[in-house]
Amino acid sequence: VADFVEIIDKDSAKQALVQFGGEMILKTRHGAYDGRGNAKISSEAELLTALDKFGNAKLYAEKLVPFAKELAVMVARDTKGNINTYPVTETIHERNICIETLTPAQVPIDILKNADDLARQVASSLEGAGVFGIEMFLTEDKQVLVNEIAPRVHNSGHYTMNGCTTSQFEQHIRAITGLPLGDTQLLVPAIVMRNLLGRRDGETKVNGLSTALSLPNASVHLYGKSPTKIDRKMGHINVVARN
Amino acid sequence: VADFVEIIDKDSAKQALVQFGGEMILKTRHGAYDGRGNAKISSEAELLTALDKFGNAKLYAEKLVPFAKELAVMVARDTKGNINTYPVTETIHERNICIETLTPAQVPIDILKNADDLARQVASSLEGAGVFGIEMFLTEDKQVLVNEIAPRVHNSGHYTMNGCTTSQFEQHIRAITGLPLGDTQLLVPAIVMRNLLGRRDGETKVNGLSTALSLPNASVHLYGKSPTKIDRKMGHINVVARN
Repeated sequence: VADFVEIIDKDSAKQALVQFGGEMILKTRHGAYDGRGNAKISSEAELLTALDKFGNAKLYAEKLVPFAKELAVMVARDTKGNINTYPVTETIHERNICIETLTPAQVPIDILKNADDLARQVASSLEGAGVFGIEMFLTEDKQVLVNEIAPRVHNSGHYTMNGCTTSQFEQHIRAITGLPLGDTQLLVPAIVMRNLLGRRDGETKVNGLSTALSLPNASVHLYGKSPTKIDRKMGHINVVARN
Repeated sequence: VADFVEIIDKDSAKQALVQFGGEMILKTRHGAYDGRGNAKISSEAELLTALDKFGNAKLYAEKLVPFAKELAVMVARDTKGNINTYPVTETIHERNICIETLTPAQVPIDILKNADDLARQVASSLEGAGVFGIEMFLTEDKQVLVNEIAPRVHNSGHYTMNGCTTSQFEQHIRAITGLPLGDTQLLVPAIVMRNLLGRRDGETKVNGLSTALSLPNASVHLYGKSPTKIDRKMGHINVVARN
């Protein structure tokens, strides 16, 4: 059984749902991010609703993968094909949006190695230079599977701004300009990144900045975006800790 | 015997030189930095040359202090008078210019405490908010003396950009805008800052960038200044290390 199939019409969609055992993820082929353009389908009624919502978008369906955790690895590939990876991070999602990352990921060392190997394999097989965010599932039977590839700096790499000598942003510039890739090791025992998401639609107002800045070892990054929208990414906070 | 005297004319200058035992530092009262406006005087001939060079500038003379090391402490004072300090750094000068800092300073813990106390005392006695660089001498008999106060972010605090959650620049903005002061602890075992000084007068040309960027755990900061001048500060490199 293939892990994904193209959806060309209502019939092929229904057939996919049967093939995947009554559960699948329906995805648009373009423009999807933060859960937008994705729908989890567990019944024919849900399928029809989703097909209706996606309208004329090109679609495919994927087997549902029950996972224990989500991991991500930022990987850089320079113009000569050199590759280096950042430490594996654990990503926590709510409402399909990454809201927090924990670095290093709290998983056994062999899983860390598998995730790192997989990220390097992906980067080797891609053309082009720059930083890529490789998002992964860790299944309950300890398999590491690639879920999504972001061909750019990524939310799951924001911790590098305070946890590593070379941030993912500097690394991207190094990678695409022919400069040597920078060191990616974690300089601190642990670092948590927490996203700041919009709470409403309208003009941006920052609340609680003083409180956030009072946290020990917290570094607050605001993007200066306006307007804000519900769940729009408006900034993040990196907090360094001893463990 | 006072440690410094005002110089009003050639006679008071000669008298100061006798008073200080034949050795002193002659300083202009305004506009002095990086050794400019300072002259070490060990003879009457040197005194006359220096007076000639300084022309009509207002001057004073200081007792020469033989020191074992130079230390510096960056201290922040917010608009409410709260004070916090960064770790004590050891500064190394060549041609009267700070060329390197080692953090933490390699001195006994009681010296670190004395330097920190002294920096807090200085910050308490000053008005105004912001970051101050307090430069100090550590004498051979283990005294810590204030040498110079920079009422601003300072070269000896550049290591905070890669060694601490809150850089001295962010701290300065926090201090003057009424936001809480950030954490100042050192997040890495050790960090060395090395200045990049101009080698000639003329248009800026950056040499060896790839080599610098290849150093493990090196973070290269270029200021984008042009033209360059001999010994002009054009950038710095922070290198994080295990010890």
